[in-house]
Amino acid sequence: MVDAKKEALRVSEENGGKLEIHSKVDVKSMEDLAVAYTPGVAAVSTAIHEDQSKVYKYTGKKNTIAVVTDGSAVLGLGNIGAEAAIPVMEGKAVLFKEFAGVDAIPICLNTQNTEEIISHIKAIAPSFGGINLEDIGAPRCFEIEQRLKDELDIPVFHDDQHGTAIIVLGALYNALKLSNKKLEDAHIVINGGGAAGIAITKKFLKAGAKNIKLVDKTGIISEDNSKLEQRHKEIATLTNKNHQKGDLHEALKGADVFIGVSAPGVLKQEWIKDMNEKPIIFAMANPTPEIMPDETKKGGAFIVGTGRSDFPNQINNVLAFPGIFRGALDSRAYDITDKMQIAAAKGIAEVIPKEQLTRDYIIPDAFNQSVVKTVAKAVQNAAKNDG
Amino acid sequence: MVDAKKEALRVSEENGGKLEIHSKVDVKSMEDLAVAYTPGVAAVSTAIHEDQSKVYKYTGKKNTIAVVTDGSAVLGLGNIGAEAAIPVMEGKAVLFKEFAGVDAIPICLNTQNTEEIISHIKAIAPSFGGINLEDIGAPRCFEIEQRLKDELDIPVFHDDQHGTAIIVLGALYNALKLSNKKLEDAHIVINGGGAAGIAITKKFLKAGAKNIKLVDKTGIISEDNSKLEQRHKEIATLTNKNHQKGDLHEALKGADVFIGVSAPGVLKQEWIKDMNEKPIIFAMANPTPEIMPDETKKGGAFIVGTGRSDFPNQINNVLAFPGIFRGALDSRAYDITDKMQIAAAKGIAEVIPKEQLTRDYIIPDAFNQSVVKTVAKAVQNAAKNDG
Repeated sequence: MVDAKKEALRVSEENGGKLEIHSKVDVKSMEDLAVAYTPGVAAVSTAIHEDQSKVYKYTGKKNTIAVVTDGSAVLGLGNIGAEAAIPVMEGKAVLFKEFAGVDAIPICLNTQNTEEIISHIKAIAPSFGGINLEDIGAPRCFEIEQRLKDELDIPVFHDDQHGTAIIVLGALYNALKLSNKKLEDAHIVINGGGAAGIAITKKFLKAGAKNIKLVDKTGIISEDNSKLEQRHKEIATLTNKNHQKGDLHEALKGADVFIGVSAPGVLKQEWIKDMNEKPIIFAMANPTPEIMPDETKKGGAFIVGTGRSDFPNQINNVLAFPGIFRGALDSRAYDITDKMQIAAAKGIAEVIPKEQLTRDYIIPDAFNQSVVKTVAKAVQNAAKNDG
Repeated sequence: MVDAKKEALRVSEENGGKLEIHSKVDVKSMEDLAVAYTPGVAAVSTAIHEDQSKVYKYTGKKNTIAVVTDGSAVLGLGNIGAEAAIPVMEGKAVLFKEFAGVDAIPICLNTQNTEEIISHIKAIAPSFGGINLEDIGAPRCFEIEQRLKDELDIPVFHDDQHGTAIIVLGALYNALKLSNKKLEDAHIVINGGGAAGIAITKKFLKAGAKNIKLVDKTGIISEDNSKLEQRHKEIATLTNKNHQKGDLHEALKGADVFIGVSAPGVLKQEWIKDMNEKPIIFAMANPTPEIMPDETKKGGAFIVGTGRSDFPNQINNVLAFPGIFRGALDSRAYDITDKMQIAAAKGIAEVIPKEQLTRDYIIPDAFNQSVVKTVAKAVQNAAKNDG
């Protein structure tokens, strides 16, 4: 087994990062030069100046996105700044290219001010066909994404929120099929009040879930709690209809689904028996989950998923973001709407035919080549219907 | 002969622009994924977080520059905006890669406000090892470049100013060798008061020229003229020591060198006989020069250069900018100083051995592979001596 961290350092040093630019045109003669640069290029610029929509016909805009971070919430490393975030953005760009043929450019901003970040991203937008926000801390990631969605005419997508929500929803669709339950009826506990937990809650509601409790360190989020953080107030009105109070254990009583985007070890094995029959446990804290899979199964879980590749049912963002941008770029969508995202989740689920679904195989393999195609197609269809 | 403009449209449409991203690492297995992205990438980010200088060791920063424009002065097309500028920036990026192996990313800003442009470029700087400013109109290009040079710790270079000045200076070194004159003694007339004319004037002064007259539409620029534009006031104190007045014809009397960065046809054939012996004429208005080469020679010029590839002695920026950034990146210079730029000009000149110089061969061919190497080496050496 290769040590991934040592190997990552070796490979990064040897290659000088993980990306390079390739020219799609030859420049071997004065004639080539006249086509690639002046005077040929003047005709292309003039055509776009006369009809700005032709920027999609004649330039890389239609296949190029910016992967933008402020370095404030990088992986589990926290606020490590713009320069230290570069390897992660390069890695993300590698995945965009290798999985979906999308040309992604790392842009690491040396500010963590909300208005400045919005202003810089708007300024650089002309040469990009989409913006993937990455590892920007809460709560400013919410406002940055919403403002950019409103103010730009290209799709904007914060993967840490929606990518996670989409793949969790896709996994849940298949888990519910196997347990003969429906999203509308399922009682769902989401543990973790950060960006991912909030995004999953909102996406599940949009997808039709009706019984959700969001739990953070202070317990079940409820309208009755006067000390709610601003970002939890909206959620409180949409979840926990019975105004239930209590801790995670209390929330889990009678629940069908536990979604953990929180911290290692917070789910106790003995609480699982208090859940409804055929409980579904997605424990995604990384690298150490809320409960280890062997304990989860001992506790009586029906289906178990984690974020890790060394256990079955890895809930891995890489199944979502490449196909989502592939579909959004190919349909030249102005936005990546909730409907497009939910279509992507269904697409991921449907990659596995129902007769092949098992308790340890609810999520397609990251290298299953049908995933990107299916997700991109679902997103394109949803974009048509949504626009 | 291929029609370069038609071919440029065809090639741009067929390829969807001229650039793409390539991954330098394979992603074919879960192990590859762990190296290219999580968890491997966390080790690389942590190493940089602990020692920020390692960003040059482990990321693409050391070989990646941004080619930034505001779309305000694109080729001869003028203020065509950010989207229409993309093909030119893509073309420039192609040349950076093909000639010097530099990874260049087009960044087209949708603002033409000086302070905003400075702010955006500073914000995106962390992932770039250098900034090439391109096709930004005067006078704001001067302030933008100077401020960025002062405020960023990576090299910043406005090619429209300095790239042109460097290659003109390189060509002039060889032309003066053939005419047995020295830069210090030569009487030089620079026609054109825009960014290029001012940059050439300043660079020539730094290189040791002592007798320069800058001429614009109003005539010879002189301290005595109370209506000088702000950007010409500084130049006026440094040139035209005798406070000479008059038009271009007047300026040319007794001059050794005419440098045109102005408009088609403004240099009359009959004025050349009023210049000093062995006059040097670089008529670089594009595509139609200040005087056509056949007329220039009939008028008695000793050496003639233009910006065009269909005449001898093409004064072509592509000889300068690739090697300059190659050298600056390889020496990890903080700046591209005047000394480095003058060293580049000498490097370009010295690519042609003295015994091979002829009146029609003072500038190396764009595809001469010695050019980038020689220029990069000269820039690296100058960078060492400069600091």
